[in-house]
Amino acid sequence: MQALNGFRDFYPEAFAQRAFLFETWRRVASGYGFVEYDGPPLESLDLFTKKSGEEIVGQLYNFVDKGDRPVTLRPEMTPTFARMVAARHRDYKKPLKWMAVPQVFRYERPQKGRLREHYQLNCDIVGEESLSADVELIACLVDVLRAFGLTSKDFVIRMSDRQFWIDFLKENGVPESEWYLKLQAIDKSEREKPEVTREKLGPLAEKIEKIFAEGGSSERISTVVNGLKAMGLEDYVQVDFRIVRGLAYYTGIVFEAFDRSGEFRAIAGGGRYDSLLKNLCQVDLPALGFGLGDVVLAELLKSKGLLPEVARQLDYYVAIPEESFREQALGLIHQLRDKGNRVDYSLVSQKMGKQFESAESRGAEKIMIVDALILQGIVSVKTVATREQVQVSILDIQNSAAI
Amino acid sequence: MQALNGFRDFYPEAFAQRAFLFETWRRVASGYGFVEYDGPPLESLDLFTKKSGEEIVGQLYNFVDKGDRPVTLRPEMTPTFARMVAARHRDYKKPLKWMAVPQVFRYERPQKGRLREHYQLNCDIVGEESLSADVELIACLVDVLRAFGLTSKDFVIRMSDRQFWIDFLKENGVPESEWYLKLQAIDKSEREKPEVTREKLGPLAEKIEKIFAEGGSSERISTVVNGLKAMGLEDYVQVDFRIVRGLAYYTGIVFEAFDRSGEFRAIAGGGRYDSLLKNLCQVDLPALGFGLGDVVLAELLKSKGLLPEVARQLDYYVAIPEESFREQALGLIHQLRDKGNRVDYSLVSQKMGKQFESAESRGAEKIMIVDALILQGIVSVKTVATREQVQVSILDIQNSAAI
Repeated sequence: MQALNGFRDFYPEAFAQRAFLFETWRRVASGYGFVEYDGPPLESLDLFTKKSGEEIVGQLYNFVDKGDRPVTLRPEMTPTFARMVAARHRDYKKPLKWMAVPQVFRYERPQKGRLREHYQLNCDIVGEESLSADVELIACLVDVLRAFGLTSKDFVIRMSDRQFWIDFLKENGVPESEWYLKLQAIDKSEREKPEVTREKLGPLAEKIEKIFAEGGSSERISTVVNGLKAMGLEDYVQVDFRIVRGLAYYTGIVFEAFDRSGEFRAIAGGGRYDSLLKNLCQVDLPALGFGLGDVVLAELLKSKGLLPEVARQLDYYVAIPEESFREQALGLIHQLRDKGNRVDYSLVSQKMGKQFESAESRGAEKIMIVDALILQGIVSVKTVATREQVQVSILDIQNSAAI
Repeated sequence: MQALNGFRDFYPEAFAQRAFLFETWRRVASGYGFVEYDGPPLESLDLFTKKSGEEIVGQLYNFVDKGDRPVTLRPEMTPTFARMVAARHRDYKKPLKWMAVPQVFRYERPQKGRLREHYQLNCDIVGEESLSADVELIACLVDVLRAFGLTSKDFVIRMSDRQFWIDFLKENGVPESEWYLKLQAIDKSEREKPEVTREKLGPLAEKIEKIFAEGGSSERISTVVNGLKAMGLEDYVQVDFRIVRGLAYYTGIVFEAFDRSGEFRAIAGGGRYDSLLKNLCQVDLPALGFGLGDVVLAELLKSKGLLPEVARQLDYYVAIPEESFREQALGLIHQLRDKGNRVDYSLVSQKMGKQFESAESRGAEKIMIVDALILQGIVSVKTVATREQVQVSILDIQNSAAI
């Protein structure tokens, strides 16, 4: 009996690593004033086809449920977010700054680094046109990555302006029907042979390659860069007009986070999508957001030695050398736990050596020994790291708020 | 566009309440030395039919996936837990003390307090026969409920010994094929008319009713009660032989948590299931556990006024009276965030009154005003609760580890 193909079991070590990622995500995003929401992992299929077209269905973990409803495990959070915002945006002051940590699902052939599920940090801002929102969002992504110990030598946010390209195509007389193909060609230019890209770009190839090399002129980009400078984050971003993001719905500043070594796929991506809420839910509010997955990030952190090893599981291990002291030990254990300590002990009689082994394997900070001294109201407390041992009165334990 | 029937959207206020439950669950359970794991929300259907029989399928949110696999959204965590333990129990010291906070799913007609999904705290101990494990598990449940501010006046753990009843049926010559029906009759005796129960119990009715009234004699129960006494938790438990738990797989001490008023359904339930891992996964390890759902618990806490109101979202709101100070404000904001504070500000020029309103609506503890004083390296910091305002040097902010 195994987990389904493409799904992960999180044994305690793996769970601790996942919790480390989530806690860091939540700490930094709430530091930016984002508040967390969540929606159901199962949604109506049409919520997603409405945004991405019928083609998306081939990639979804969708089915028809017992009530004959076409439903799907969510492949992403944005449509749920749009649905929730549309239903209740009037109840909240704008801009909304909302975050979520959903598990998302795709029905794709599982391969290395691409499972059928993964977790994402999603941060979105709704109701603010000003580029200061773009600054805020990109800064938050930078700080999430910095919080793991990654530096500007490890990663970079490549930032561009999709609106610049749309204006460029317009000015050069490209009909709107061809924009998406041209933008896709620009998006893929790094991964395809130059001659393929050139053919796709047609007569504009030379002009566009010049912009790749020298950069374009975008007041939006300058404003965002200045904002990030004011925050001291200019080393983490790089303007790069080759970034346009594959998805059709981005309308302004777009960005992707990469490791500097180029070893991994994109770590995160996002941008402004000012028309999406209107198209999807008839609510005309500007919006922008990013998504950051857990899989590539964990691979990158691991390669840099930034994933912490087995976490300390216990503050105290209470060792009981003789069964006659167990009853009093239970009372002490409960008091220690009540004061907020993580405490464990052997549930049955065991040799002291075994108990010390358990204490160490669980990473206990201290070992409390409940032996004959308890008859005088005293226990011994040993600090594992220093091997230092002191005697403590149980009255002091009972009377102190924290120990 | 709405969430599917029976599924909840967690808007920020609802999410904050859910996070409050989860954090309390995790804090107390990790205090007891439980470590967290998780499995996939989607599993093979046969994992559940193997445990509960084909009848269970009628209640499941199951389907056949694109790869023709019969799969289901998990209705409970125990089979996943059994599968994971069976696969890797040799990698861990016994006893395992594992916890999880899964979302679980049922395809049932949604009604008040019964949705198609809910969250559960699951705590399980594997590999320990001794009744000290039963004490530990029940104590953990008591302390989880106590941690919310519930007292022995609010709830009680009704505890019984299923093995006592099995021995009783054996001694009274009831054939094994009838045990399950008799146990079910005992389990339902509180909710059914006495004559219905009496008929189901047949010739043993009188004896059984005497045990209901006077209690039975179980050394297991006495041992567990003594353990809980040693921990100071005797007020929270009540021996009650009418509790046997509906599920067939319990083998020893069983328990259910109820509010004392009798207003709500059972808050939590659990017990010892020493044969389940063997039956399900061919691994012969004794085990016990409990499950505690989020829905009834939240209703109970709400009725007692124990659900906290809107949490404080911000440590600082930074007010910017004039746009010319925005750049320096951004630098300060980033420093405050870098020191671990939750900070927000208006992304665009706004009247000070509006900014103060935002600060209050977000529950900001302090408001930092970046005005002309910034030219002398000074900002004003106002504590919202006391209205007290002080001037702070930005050098002091930069140089202190926390502010």
